[in-house]
Amino acid sequence: MKRAIAALMVMTLCGGAFARTQDEILNSAPASDWRAVDPENTLYMDLPKGRVVIELAPAFAPNHVVNVKTLTRQKYYDGLAVIRLQDNYVAQWADPESKRDVGKAQLYLPPEFARPIGDLPFTALPDVDTYAPQVGFTHGFPTARNPDLGLVWLAHCYAMVGAGRAEDANTGGGTELYAVIGHAPRHLDRNVTLFGRILQGVSLLSSLPRGTGDIGFYKTPAEYTPITSIRVAADVPDHVALEALRTDSKSFAELLDVRRSRRDEWFKEPTNRIELCNVPLPVREKK
Amino acid sequence: MKRAIAALMVMTLCGGAFARTQDEILNSAPASDWRAVDPENTLYMDLPKGRVVIELAPAFAPNHVVNVKTLTRQKYYDGLAVIRLQDNYVAQWADPESKRDVGKAQLYLPPEFARPIGDLPFTALPDVDTYAPQVGFTHGFPTARNPDLGLVWLAHCYAMVGAGRAEDANTGGGTELYAVIGHAPRHLDRNVTLFGRILQGVSLLSSLPRGTGDIGFYKTPAEYTPITSIRVAADVPDHVALEALRTDSKSFAELLDVRRSRRDEWFKEPTNRIELCNVPLPVREKK
Repeated sequence: MKRAIAALMVMTLCGGAFARTQDEILNSAPASDWRAVDPENTLYMDLPKGRVVIELAPAFAPNHVVNVKTLTRQKYYDGLAVIRLQDNYVAQWADPESKRDVGKAQLYLPPEFARPIGDLPFTALPDVDTYAPQVGFTHGFPTARNPDLGLVWLAHCYAMVGAGRAEDANTGGGTELYAVIGHAPRHLDRNVTLFGRILQGVSLLSSLPRGTGDIGFYKTPAEYTPITSIRVAADVPDHVALEALRTDSKSFAELLDVRRSRRDEWFKEPTNRIELCNVPLPVREKK
Repeated sequence: MKRAIAALMVMTLCGGAFARTQDEILNSAPASDWRAVDPENTLYMDLPKGRVVIELAPAFAPNHVVNVKTLTRQKYYDGLAVIRLQDNYVAQWADPESKRDVGKAQLYLPPEFARPIGDLPFTALPDVDTYAPQVGFTHGFPTARNPDLGLVWLAHCYAMVGAGRAEDANTGGGTELYAVIGHAPRHLDRNVTLFGRILQGVSLLSSLPRGTGDIGFYKTPAEYTPITSIRVAADVPDHVALEALRTDSKSFAELLDVRRSRRDEWFKEPTNRIELCNVPLPVREKK
């Protein structure tokens, strides 16, 4: 009986057709449902074991994006290190000695914690969120909104990248960066400037040994993972063209639907709900 | 002005006193706010690099707990391996060849996905949850409830441990185990039997190299991490007595409050909300 009801829902939601698998949806998505990831807004962070690819979010943190790209093009990050790995929380990389000259970049920037909703696109999720009145997607990034405040911000989901800061909100800027490698620490939303997310290679960070010092800092430089280099992808002659599924596309909506309401036989009690940070954001090499 | 309001809230919530730090709360918690973790319901999973300590949850999965302990005491798991590590999802360990005899244990058990609420204690969280009508804590475990169904179940938060299964719901039992090592996959709630959580050593699993096969399985046995042994702590002569903060204690309530509403100067926009899987469950060695 329950099975019959589930089948009925599939038919209702998908206009008469039975639900397709996630792979089927992605494989048959029309070219117009994919967007090119701009190499000018993409960073390659090369670690000894491979490449971490980061997409920048200039619509949310324009000043931080400019500053991080300036630092990158000055080769500020080359030879720095991952100095902190706190389990179920963040990986953090910076100048261990805080000595390197920022050159034409800014050492500190005012925060870009949130921005006016304005005319930014927003694909809303239908389910309630613990932390924000509205959650969804903007330009392929997980976002949260508060219409009463008129604000939208990037959400601290897995693989999001931000600029660490000290107690003063004006001490961010980009010389100290972090990526979320655990359960979404959404209490950081609107408290730190997020400016991008990892598209590929997050496991190069998430699988690093955990720091045994306070809040996951490594106790000795011997434990650091060196950063070989960070480059703007557009500056790398053999950069790989990537595409991301448009979060305002029909294919994304269908993918979201089959993730919310699992119909494959393995699931016995589909939740028919989905939490913001459990939504996959598909990325592929351009065909 | 906002600061003044925040200070007022502190005074209201804490009865006139200013909020204490999490460390202060834990360090001054009376002995009665801690409970002894029962060594008869504790497993030691020894890996080459250290020990993973798992607390079992007999109130939620009595048959799986008995079966896993039977398998453990037959040394079923000794010499098996971690065969799957999917980034931001699960670590899974089992007999790679599915050949080992289960002896007096059961190969398969009926599911224990959820149980009647009955008279089980429940410390409710005040904030909404995406997946369940009510979430909170029972016996120190993160739980979710649906009063309409009269059911309560363990929630798939970071470090929870369960019994993998095939498509048939009756193919769990305990020969194939997994731990959550990423953002909480709450869509698995009520679809797999959870029977415990890792109290110590989760990073020995979460920092393992990611499997490069389909859904994170390792492609070759050379990539496996061997399981040296699994033991019931009570059977280990030098086992370490652990205590966990009671989730129905005053100290836990205060800890929860300062996690929901951060008052230290670093936080500029405290969320005044907390999601189930972002609540720490303090554990210490018995003093």
